Amino acid sequence: MKVLVINCGSSSLKYQLIDSDTEAVIAKGLCERIGIDGKLTHQTMGKDKYTVDAAMPDHNAAVKFVLDALLDTDKGAIASLSEIDAVGHRIVHGGEKFANSVVITDEVMAAIEECNDLAPLHNPANLIGIRACQAHMPGVPMVAVFDTAFHQTMPDKAYTYAIPYEYYENYKIRRYGFHGTSHSFVSKRLAELIGRDIKDTKLIVCHLGNGSSITAVDGGKSVDTSMGLTPLAGLPMGTRSGDIDPAILEFIAGKEGKSVEEITTILNKKSGVSGLSGVSSDFRDLDAGMKDGNDRCRLALDVFCYSVKKYIGAYAAAMGDLDAIAFTAGIGENNPYVRRVSTMDLSFMGIDIDETKNEIRGEEQKISTDASKVQVWVVPTNEELAIARETVELVTK
Amino acid sequence: MKVLVINCGSSSLKYQLIDSDTEAVIAKGLCERIGIDGKLTHQTMGKDKYTVDAAMPDHNAAVKFVLDALLDTDKGAIASLSEIDAVGHRIVHGGEKFANSVVITDEVMAAIEECNDLAPLHNPANLIGIRACQAHMPGVPMVAVFDTAFHQTMPDKAYTYAIPYEYYENYKIRRYGFHGTSHSFVSKRLAELIGRDIKDTKLIVCHLGNGSSITAVDGGKSVDTSMGLTPLAGLPMGTRSGDIDPAILEFIAGKEGKSVEEITTILNKKSGVSGLSGVSSDFRDLDAGMKDGNDRCRLALDVFCYSVKKYIGAYAAAMGDLDAIAFTAGIGENNPYVRRVSTMDLSFMGIDIDETKNEIRGEEQKISTDASKVQVWVVPTNEELAIARETVELVTK
Repeated sequence: MKVLVINCGSSSLKYQLIDSDTEAVIAKGLCERIGIDGKLTHQTMGKDKYTVDAAMPDHNAAVKFVLDALLDTDKGAIASLSEIDAVGHRIVHGGEKFANSVVITDEVMAAIEECNDLAPLHNPANLIGIRACQAHMPGVPMVAVFDTAFHQTMPDKAYTYAIPYEYYENYKIRRYGFHGTSHSFVSKRLAELIGRDIKDTKLIVCHLGNGSSITAVDGGKSVDTSMGLTPLAGLPMGTRSGDIDPAILEFIAGKEGKSVEEITTILNKKSGVSGLSGVSSDFRDLDAGMKDGNDRCRLALDVFCYSVKKYIGAYAAAMGDLDAIAFTAGIGENNPYVRRVSTMDLSFMGIDIDETKNEIRGEEQKISTDASKVQVWVVPTNEELAIARETVELVTK
Repeated sequence: MKVLVINCGSSSLKYQLIDSDTEAVIAKGLCERIGIDGKLTHQTMGKDKYTVDAAMPDHNAAVKFVLDALLDTDKGAIASLSEIDAVGHRIVHGGEKFANSVVITDEVMAAIEECNDLAPLHNPANLIGIRACQAHMPGVPMVAVFDTAFHQTMPDKAYTYAIPYEYYENYKIRRYGFHGTSHSFVSKRLAELIGRDIKDTKLIVCHLGNGSSITAVDGGKSVDTSMGLTPLAGLPMGTRSGDIDPAILEFIAGKEGKSVEEITTILNKKSGVSGLSGVSSDFRDLDAGMKDGNDRCRLALDVFCYSVKKYIGAYAAAMGDLDAIAFTAGIGENNPYVRRVSTMDLSFMGIDIDETKNEIRGEEQKISTDASKVQVWVVPTNEELAIARETVELVTK
């Protein structure tokens, strides 16, 4: 089957066309600045990558450009739209309504819309993307794959905040967690790599990218995760603060006369390792800065790695044991320093990193020593492939 | 020496007169409703406890009542004020200015005042209490003992928030931690109990009371603690939320049109196990509610214990090993259920509780099995005695 995977942002649209039999990417690309001006970057594998500026007043127009690029006789990938067997859509927030991926129906669309409230920037864009695809590909089955769904197995002690219970009853304020597609994909792969039935494993997945989250996966199920109601919570990230004393918002408001919305924007966009270092949200820049003696780059890296380490300890305790850890996503796959410092001095928990093996970047490899009781692996994530697999499974049921 | 220990709140004043040679309490009591109407409860040990309503327009008047009660020929404890050799004052916030207790001078008073900003409800009351004592006991040496001082040894990776660095530079927003006197006292005692030089130990102190905090004590020094800029952070507490996704404040503001100050008040006073259970902030009521089948009492206890357990794992990882754990304060000393559930299924970390020994309340006792690699103890805290010891040490130098 050929599956088109769509990931819509408020002004962007990423896509991949995947052959689900070989799991190879046939073509991929990106529409940017939708509603502003518009730019398409497309590549069919084995052919040249190209970029065109093109007016994209809305997501409907962007989807049309994507399909035209796929159909292009010269640089395209398919001869007819009928070759696209199914479309998989990444949806950010499924609230408590979706614990699994689903085939999209009118009822599903309405339920996703009811979750808009929980992800006001993302879910509406996701819905627009689905409707645009439906308009151009009527009759093609479509599947919604939720970032939150994998975490719906968390027990109430892990997802409940110690705030007035009415906030949960009335507004559904609770921990949801994100990156679920990645945590699910990587935990399954990690269980294979250590040669165990996932049902009998206790795993920690460290998805460390521009957004970062860590998940405790017990018996194949998410039992706790570091992100919360929103993707602001948990670890420090590129520009996000992660968890802080919640009284800090009032303190800053008192000092600077800012509104809670303004402060939350600062916590989302001006904080994290970028705000701490004053240099960059890109860990390569922090690595370089630290090597040059920039102490705030050192501090930003230290704060980040220390937070990862504490989550590893906390989640091992939460599960009552630990079999393996996976590092994934941009930083997890490519930053040996972060992996090393985050797992340093954890021999008492049976974690021992092989510093030579740990030097690899972007490859699937065990990085713990053979004597290490807990196996530690780099496992590249592939959210698009995971969405394609879920899509195929549901449309061929 | 006879040391008077004073703990001033905004409308209250707790005191103990302690014989520092025997470490016995000679007399103790409480002034309440200062500035409202006024009420004194006093007891000299070996004599009857009594309560009187008395007009206390300010802390100055309250201190006068305390001294008169101590001097009372019938129910008092001393014949002359000259018997009071020193006064130890508990001060909530010493910011970055105080890493130790200090003899109070004009410079110290000014420096405490500069920290008011960080504890606007508590530090001004503490200063009023000091001035009132100085007025009534001129020439008596006085010592300031800070709730934050013990935690000033934390490394920057533990105390720095991943927010714009200017907030630290300009407003000193960072993790400070509290209950330092208790964490210091209990960690020292725990090292003695396990028969080790504290310099060679890695300890976790769980101070669980109406306010709760957990500290990692490595080599006798606080290296991390769960409270933050304010005592709102960390564990869920009686009425405080502890850490939550910081985006929740904006979410509630959007739903209910509340200000950041109003929401922070809810997080401080209407949250925690009280807000979750809807029943009480008192763990005895939660225990009873759970036994009666109240599921929200069960949930509140689960959320609390689960948070304690995750901190134990996180701080063991932070220190790279763990020798012993102490439970202290109201809940830590008296709630076997909380101790058991918080440490359940941690055998992989070498923690094994003896369920029979764990049934004790309010007594110093080992509650781990003899086979447990990590010793777990109940260690009653005594902040007043700790303040008296610090006071004697400084005034006899």
